[in-house]
Amino acid sequence: MFEAIELGQTLSKADFKAQEQQLRAQLLKIQRDLIESRVATLIIVAGVEGAGKGEVVDRFNKWFDNRGMETHAFWDETQEELERPQYWRFWRRLPSRGSIAVMFGGWYWDPIHQRAAGNIDDAELDDAMQHIRELERMLTADGMLIIKLWFHLSPTAHEKRMKKRRGMTRHVPHVGNGLSPKEYTAFLIAAERSLRHTDTGGCPWHMIESDNRRFRDISAGRVIGKLMTERLTETHVVERLSEAHEPEVLSISDQQKTILDKVDLDAALSREDYHELLTRYQAQVNELSWKAYDAKRSTVMVFEGWDAAGKGGSIRRLTNAIDARLFRVISVAAPTDEELAHHYLWRFWRQFPRAGYMALYDRSWYGRVLVERVEKFAEQHAWMAAYREINDFEEQLSQHGTILMKFWLHISPDMQLQRFREREKTPWKKHKITEEDWRNRNKWDDYRRSVNDMVLHTSTGNCPWTLVSANDKYNARIEVLKTVCEQLKHALD
Amino acid sequence: MFEAIELGQTLSKADFKAQEQQLRAQLLKIQRDLIESRVATLIIVAGVEGAGKGEVVDRFNKWFDNRGMETHAFWDETQEELERPQYWRFWRRLPSRGSIAVMFGGWYWDPIHQRAAGNIDDAELDDAMQHIRELERMLTADGMLIIKLWFHLSPTAHEKRMKKRRGMTRHVPHVGNGLSPKEYTAFLIAAERSLRHTDTGGCPWHMIESDNRRFRDISAGRVIGKLMTERLTETHVVERLSEAHEPEVLSISDQQKTILDKVDLDAALSREDYHELLTRYQAQVNELSWKAYDAKRSTVMVFEGWDAAGKGGSIRRLTNAIDARLFRVISVAAPTDEELAHHYLWRFWRQFPRAGYMALYDRSWYGRVLVERVEKFAEQHAWMAAYREINDFEEQLSQHGTILMKFWLHISPDMQLQRFREREKTPWKKHKITEEDWRNRNKWDDYRRSVNDMVLHTSTGNCPWTLVSANDKYNARIEVLKTVCEQLKHALD
Repeated sequence: MFEAIELGQTLSKADFKAQEQQLRAQLLKIQRDLIESRVATLIIVAGVEGAGKGEVVDRFNKWFDNRGMETHAFWDETQEELERPQYWRFWRRLPSRGSIAVMFGGWYWDPIHQRAAGNIDDAELDDAMQHIRELERMLTADGMLIIKLWFHLSPTAHEKRMKKRRGMTRHVPHVGNGLSPKEYTAFLIAAERSLRHTDTGGCPWHMIESDNRRFRDISAGRVIGKLMTERLTETHVVERLSEAHEPEVLSISDQQKTILDKVDLDAALSREDYHELLTRYQAQVNELSWKAYDAKRSTVMVFEGWDAAGKGGSIRRLTNAIDARLFRVISVAAPTDEELAHHYLWRFWRQFPRAGYMALYDRSWYGRVLVERVEKFAEQHAWMAAYREINDFEEQLSQHGTILMKFWLHISPDMQLQRFREREKTPWKKHKITEEDWRNRNKWDDYRRSVNDMVLHTSTGNCPWTLVSANDKYNARIEVLKTVCEQLKHALD
Repeated sequence: MFEAIELGQTLSKADFKAQEQQLRAQLLKIQRDLIESRVATLIIVAGVEGAGKGEVVDRFNKWFDNRGMETHAFWDETQEELERPQYWRFWRRLPSRGSIAVMFGGWYWDPIHQRAAGNIDDAELDDAMQHIRELERMLTADGMLIIKLWFHLSPTAHEKRMKKRRGMTRHVPHVGNGLSPKEYTAFLIAAERSLRHTDTGGCPWHMIESDNRRFRDISAGRVIGKLMTERLTETHVVERLSEAHEPEVLSISDQQKTILDKVDLDAALSREDYHELLTRYQAQVNELSWKAYDAKRSTVMVFEGWDAAGKGGSIRRLTNAIDARLFRVISVAAPTDEELAHHYLWRFWRQFPRAGYMALYDRSWYGRVLVERVEKFAEQHAWMAAYREINDFEEQLSQHGTILMKFWLHISPDMQLQRFREREKTPWKKHKITEEDWRNRNKWDDYRRSVNDMVLHTSTGNCPWTLVSANDKYNARIEVLKTVCEQLKHALD
């Protein structure tokens, strides 16, 4: 694969100067257009040691207006990053619409090096690449332009640079002093495999011959300029991409009966039983939340359900049992403008709890396949893709050791009507019932179908949904508490 | 001071139940009103060990809708926090308008304990309290409701609780096992001194007798309810406060001659000299930026100046010399809605560089006393107060060891006109010149006066302004580079 670009191409000083000037004016102009079109650009700079990735990025910073551009290296992981799933560090640095981010190595660095060092095998590398492919597809479909550059050196040039580096006294931290020939070969094999697996139509790799510095920089700049221009002119590129990559989803049920019909809505608890069980499970939750803290395991709980199903009450019974320092309730309302400038999952990533802490989401990322689907805020290909995106997202949490629970609080339409009427009569609950609730109620069937599909697609072995019978409030609260106890116990044992 | 609340007040179980119910309905209603009025509320829960601060906060979480409320403890400092000035951890957790934040100990915990342990003396404690008073005044003037609760125990009750705690097996991390009588006395003395210094009219302390748990919780709830109601009804409270606390600023100059007239606008460099000096200083900056990285010293540079004074060009000459992984250029544009929901300094705090890294602000917090003053976006008492606020803010950076530099790029009105005309003629610079620039130009005198006052008030020994002679672009760039070299050298030696 790599031999194909060992062509010995060079560029004279004079040619470089002339071409750089032209390129620079072009790139600056494109950057302004990208801002206007609100396109987020991510440039991943990867390649072999000694190819001069640092020099190239310094050059980008010179060419572009660096007020709209940020550079990120991941050499210096913080404790806060280590306490979250691996990809948190990338999500928090993704460019917002209209800006450019340059990442050294990006998400490729770690798996390629782990494979080269023999810490993971081919299957694990492939698995990592599969995740990356999915992530890049998702971000591209969201309108991001991802430019992946691989800087390659011929074996002789590589040996020469390494020799020089070993003799250098100037301090540049986190730059290796050269791999042994055997390690270097292992690195190239791992790199080739990774590149092959992630060289997709929507997000291909671009190889840059780097033996000659001037040729390298101009080539890289040209590739960037070309891809940016394409992105700006082909206005339909995003749509086409999303369609082309549309996931094969299981057929969507149109039957009358859905999974929700399996929930026994008659389940109920007496007042006495409720209070006894409440006390018992709250004590357990308290104990277990400290245990999770000690074990440095994070917990994420998702609460979804019909309007007036009692999400708030169930959350409160749970949080009353937990030390206030350990949890955070995240109420998902309209996104801020900063959140709107990113992929829809970005705002959930940024709120992730640290090791040992808990986050309770009152509504969640499932809005994408519920309200956004029913209200047609998201197009069909977008919400259909979301099932896979969400599964992938949740799998990352599980792999990191996050304890994830998902609750759907189910009630009957009659019960909802009854509660709406009660709320309207209670002065201090009146504000909880709005026009929108009545409108949503009229779309009961659409929602029912969406919930069914959601459970069908996202109730996985790792992260199953718990359907809670909530016509009886006591029953709902205890079911939630009991499930939390069981799942925490299971995870912590 | 504390004896005054050792009154032995209690509350029966039945009374508590009745009062709790009423209080809870009241607090929930107030919370909704606070959201509607977009009032940020900060509750600081402090007091003696064993007074049950954790229990009280759990109670608040039960009473309020915890979807609009967050609790923060500072027991578990992260590396990211330790790498920033001390107050960064508080700023990042300040409540946004409409929400409630509860802080355990808040900014009081550390200084009181440091003083009790004898690590700092009275003068240093007083200095810390002076900073706190200023911070609270500033946040209050911005509309925040700060409720400070001190939970006190009588000596006998304290001894009893400590005895019980020593016998406890249940695990609660970061809870002390009781101070020795001598340590406890030292703690009380430090606490009293701190409370006295920060018991201001705008932000007083509220003492809660905590021997009886039920009395304690109801008292705390009542205080909160009362203060929130007051805040909601007295609509002019903010204005009155700001006026009452208006800082005594030095008289604002109205003379024709300002400090800017001292800048020698004839300074110029030949092309040859420029290129020679550029190469020399860029090499130095590169070296020094790595040195700062190794020394884990952060650098913050502020660039202000007339439109078309060449800020962008000077920044670029500087960043071209620095490894792209080490710096970030922050271009200050319109705030996001999340930023608007906080104090105006919040967005600068959140962008703070980690230890060893650099942040270059293209425009900055000085907007408050420049454009916001001239355009009357900020009222007079607000921008006048900003001088002290900014000095205090910058002092915190310096104390943390951040290297801070501030540049004003000065040009003559004629030079500005000439550059505006040039820009209009150059196709790829045209976008840089807008109607607004021409409007600003008409307010030259207002800006000149504002700049003079800004330098007068904020050019302190710690953080002086560098006035750069920028009629000649070469000269401006070299002056900036040279100053950066000098100041980095000075700070790192």
